[in-house]
Amino acid sequence: MNPTIETILNHRSIRKFTDQVISSEHLSLIIDCARAASSSSHLQCVSIIRVTRAENRELLAEYAGNQSYVSSAAEFLVFCADFNRHQQIKPDAKLGFVEQTLIGAVDSGLMAQNALLAAESMGLGGVYIGGLRNNPEKVCALLNLPEHVFPMFGLCLGYPDQVPEKKPRLPVDLVLHQERYRALDAQKLSEYDEQMREYYRERSQGKSEQSWSEQISQALGKEARPFMLVSLNKQGFALK
Amino acid sequence: MNPTIETILNHRSIRKFTDQVISSEHLSLIIDCARAASSSSHLQCVSIIRVTRAENRELLAEYAGNQSYVSSAAEFLVFCADFNRHQQIKPDAKLGFVEQTLIGAVDSGLMAQNALLAAESMGLGGVYIGGLRNNPEKVCALLNLPEHVFPMFGLCLGYPDQVPEKKPRLPVDLVLHQERYRALDAQKLSEYDEQMREYYRERSQGKSEQSWSEQISQALGKEARPFMLVSLNKQGFALK
Repeated sequence: MNPTIETILNHRSIRKFTDQVISSEHLSLIIDCARAASSSSHLQCVSIIRVTRAENRELLAEYAGNQSYVSSAAEFLVFCADFNRHQQIKPDAKLGFVEQTLIGAVDSGLMAQNALLAAESMGLGGVYIGGLRNNPEKVCALLNLPEHVFPMFGLCLGYPDQVPEKKPRLPVDLVLHQERYRALDAQKLSEYDEQMREYYRERSQGKSEQSWSEQISQALGKEARPFMLVSLNKQGFALK
Repeated sequence: MNPTIETILNHRSIRKFTDQVISSEHLSLIIDCARAASSSSHLQCVSIIRVTRAENRELLAEYAGNQSYVSSAAEFLVFCADFNRHQQIKPDAKLGFVEQTLIGAVDSGLMAQNALLAAESMGLGGVYIGGLRNNPEKVCALLNLPEHVFPMFGLCLGYPDQVPEKKPRLPVDLVLHQERYRALDAQKLSEYDEQMREYYRERSQGKSEQSWSEQISQALGKEARPFMLVSLNKQGFALK
């Protein structure tokens, strides 16, 4: 165990923040940490939009499905796959391949996780906002995102005003496969389901409980943002 | 500055490793760190395949475009978007949406970056292997990946046998946008291009040099893995 591993294992998503601002020195370090992440083929195809104006934050909070902490967090960063930069350099760049969407999504994840961990290591907390993808076209319009730029997710950062319980993760045996993929172990899944039920029971003072299997069944009984293909296409992510 | 931020800023990709193995305690911590990452809507849609057998490593090294360190690294982990788990729980789960591919790619990135940083904090080094996507169908066959599981990238880990220079990143002003997206600053791009030329000149003892703009123009003059859509489809990632 060392301080980095402690920071990583101590993660919980923070959705309630104090009014304290993040100093420009701290923010600058957080962005430098994001930039230090690996980049696929050195393409560096991620841009970060820092949104500070209250009216823009409120709109983004609404677009994300009324997540008020998008508005109340000290900082809000939008991580975007960005191949517009490359097109500015090479106007006839071959773009619109699904491979580039994969690279943009993965590399956004690598950069953002560096940013979040850097923040957490300084006593800050944060939460990812995938909910921006509820309204990608409105987000693009608000942030002036040109063709070949797509908002993958947001990141709220600020000083925590809550200490939530850590949410139990799938046990290692269900996540890590040795040599070849193997099907779910029903016994281990059932134990995890019971653990999640217990977690929700405690969090809600006994008012509700749900196993992970129940949660999954509910979530995947619905279509997953079926408009996404059209929204990606409009930004030039043709997925060919 | 603190140890976590030092670890993050000290990153360089390591492609040459000593013979030293990674202890099972260390590996276990690395996997726990991966599991501690945020997960979109608590879907936990990432599986990690740990490949240890020499013959499988050699095949993966070949599939990745003859990257020998895939074979020589102490550990090799393949991060996969995994919605098969959910289908086992809910056989009629609504799958094959491009949104799920985005979630799988982003969440793989978050988990893998936790794993790499945990490793780096313990004196290990590593490198991501996007090259697995040169031959996704062969990777799927070798790792027995069922429908709704897709190999996003690999991660080599081991004790470093090299200390490469840190590769200069795009300057902060070209990555971080305030409030709204803005076009490239030509002057800053040109300074970065010169910095990259210098970096490659030093690394090659003057034998070659290339600016970032030249590198980008070369890379994006070619189609980006145009077979990817078919490969994703075959695994049930229909991108609807």
